[in-house]
Amino acid sequence: MSKLVIVGSCAFDAIETPFGKTDKIIGGASPYIGLAAAQFDNVDPAIVAVVGDDFPQEYLDFLAERGINTDGIEVVKGGKTFFWSGKYHNDMNSRDTLATELNVLADFSPKVPASHKEAPIVMLGNLQPQVQLSVIEQMDVKPKLVILDTMNFWMDIALDELKTTLKKVDVITINDEEARQLSGEYSLVTAAKKIHEMGPKYVVIKKGEHGALIFEGDKMFFAPALPLSDVFDPTGAGDTFAGGFAGYIAQAGDTSFETMKTALIYGSCLASFTVEKFGTERLQSVTPEEIKERLHQFKQLVQFDININD
Amino acid sequence: MSKLVIVGSCAFDAIETPFGKTDKIIGGASPYIGLAAAQFDNVDPAIVAVVGDDFPQEYLDFLAERGINTDGIEVVKGGKTFFWSGKYHNDMNSRDTLATELNVLADFSPKVPASHKEAPIVMLGNLQPQVQLSVIEQMDVKPKLVILDTMNFWMDIALDELKTTLKKVDVITINDEEARQLSGEYSLVTAAKKIHEMGPKYVVIKKGEHGALIFEGDKMFFAPALPLSDVFDPTGAGDTFAGGFAGYIAQAGDTSFETMKTALIYGSCLASFTVEKFGTERLQSVTPEEIKERLHQFKQLVQFDININD
Repeated sequence: MSKLVIVGSCAFDAIETPFGKTDKIIGGASPYIGLAAAQFDNVDPAIVAVVGDDFPQEYLDFLAERGINTDGIEVVKGGKTFFWSGKYHNDMNSRDTLATELNVLADFSPKVPASHKEAPIVMLGNLQPQVQLSVIEQMDVKPKLVILDTMNFWMDIALDELKTTLKKVDVITINDEEARQLSGEYSLVTAAKKIHEMGPKYVVIKKGEHGALIFEGDKMFFAPALPLSDVFDPTGAGDTFAGGFAGYIAQAGDTSFETMKTALIYGSCLASFTVEKFGTERLQSVTPEEIKERLHQFKQLVQFDININD
Repeated sequence: MSKLVIVGSCAFDAIETPFGKTDKIIGGASPYIGLAAAQFDNVDPAIVAVVGDDFPQEYLDFLAERGINTDGIEVVKGGKTFFWSGKYHNDMNSRDTLATELNVLADFSPKVPASHKEAPIVMLGNLQPQVQLSVIEQMDVKPKLVILDTMNFWMDIALDELKTTLKKVDVITINDEEARQLSGEYSLVTAAKKIHEMGPKYVVIKKGEHGALIFEGDKMFFAPALPLSDVFDPTGAGDTFAGGFAGYIAQAGDTSFETMKTALIYGSCLASFTVEKFGTERLQSVTPEEIKERLHQFKQLVQFDININD
């Protein structure tokens, strides 16, 4: 088993879309990343997160039943779990945040359990860059691959700290606007080169419904997003993408560009399920057969045959 | 030789980008479509357009030298050629129109030369839908494939006329926002289905830097745009795409989905050259070797190998 340490928020989400609304359901980056990574054989996804004691034991059991190690989920006595609520507009591409109650997440100081400190792969979900760095520093053995997700918020208020953390990171995942902000370059090709110079060997640029790019030096690869008839709830798609990406790499056991390419496709594939139902619901029910079928659809979507030697 | 009739504007463009500005250069949809289509062997691109007598003979000669039949370019005595001027912003994705002087284009009534009336492929560049329809009606033999490009402007002011014309069209090319406007559907999959019901068997959705999709019934295929370090001038990229698409189909001589897929890649490939220099400059100098090399880059960009049977 290949251990994949996943650090990220664990939350209650209340989501409203044009198709309906939920009560407080399990949310935050780490459950999506964990559930996506748990789809892979021989991968042991282990979440490091913090919740309040209002977080139901059944949610922890639910994660454990799906093969996710929850030893690193700290439960703060008397604390309240991070709560996020949002409402999507009709186009499903924009949303209003109705509530963000950080609660115990505000003082999150991740404690990596001793049993996790030699994990080969570490996936750092979007958090304060100093908090992400503290996880890297707790590892006893330098991981084979550290993947970091971040966002424009940290570029706005903690750019120096982010740059310090990036020096210890192998893969960064950000969206196209964030890549432009971080690099000061409009071209994504040039942006990736500049971000590469900040530390990460691999730069993953997420473009939502427009797919994702990965750059390593002069190499680049593009994974499309699958065009869907119905997007029910986009929440967690980006985290599912990261979980599928990290999970496939953990399973493959190497960090070649070929592995990264396949990982990008798996990330995009799993994310295409998440958006079909509320929250983590679809990711809970997806079967290996359905994943195979959808990978086939991805192949059909982009594979072409031009004899360029004629 | 397979004749490809191209109907579209022929213009003077004056372009300003962050990298410089041009005097009045050759522009409009039909020169880009024609130059792109002229890249293919055994294709005889024939432009039907209108210009004023201020349009230099050397421009007509220039097109003819590149293998484009100019018999259908009407020169209006005492008339002035359509003039467009635009200035791109720093991000190159948005622009201000500085001048639009329709001149002779305002009364454009295309006259298809007798020698063009049995052409198997007709590419209708973005024009008033009634004008596009008049071209279809002038054909002596029903073409194997009629491709129509249009835009939101005609959906706003001439929707009924557009719908009438669409009934006679095999392929429509529009951008994603226009597909949503025309269909009233946000999902591009659902939008394509609705547009299909309006007439076109094939629906091509152009997403600019995010690539292009083609739909036929339940089949879909995606051609990425090649991420580039430098975009010098985006003018004409969409028309070059259309010209590469139509040109490849004319060369292939069939209208199977496999042919459409390859055509989409060729369109995207040729468009990636156009944006590298001002106007049609790059398209004039591109060599078959450069096109092959770039097709190889497109393959590298999206081809992946997952054994989905294991």
